[in-house]
Amino acid sequence: MKARVHVTLKNGVLDPQGRAIHQALETLGFAGVQDVRQGKYIEIDLDETDRAKAESLVREMCATLLANTVIETYTVSLQD
Amino acid sequence: MKARVHVTLKNGVLDPQGRAIHQALETLGFAGVQDVRQGKYIEIDLDETDRAKAESLVREMCATLLANTVIETYTVSLQD
Repeated sequence: MKARVHVTLKNGVLDPQGRAIHQALETLGFAGVQDVRQGKYIEIDLDETDRAKAESLVREMCATLLANTVIETYTVSLQD
Repeated sequence: MKARVHVTLKNGVLDPQGRAIHQALETLGFAGVQDVRQGKYIEIDLDETDRAKAESLVREMCATLLANTVIETYTVSLQD
């Protein structure tokens, strides 16, 4: 089973990477950009075939390692 | 309009970050992890309201700045 994890900064948390991209886009002449936020996209291939077990396993991975839950949130989606 | 961009390494390209995560997960006792790949997830808020124009604008941003098209691929999805 493949898990897709998105780790993004919580609203209100300053995003220096997003800001740097925003400024670079403007420097390159891209107009009409209001805001840019950057996060992590992680794909995990698992032996587990049971969806419920796979989801709880990946959520535990997020809480333990993949996300800093003080400033980040995460979403988990699964694909057979 | 909000654009969601996923930038990931092309298949076959070594992913040191993914490998580091994989090893850390195993060290933490997570069994059954076959592979881990990490990429970038970027959200861009645009003034543009026309979907076709917004898509081509964001694809140009990807080709110009957001992705290293030699080793990375990208996907673009839009949300009104």
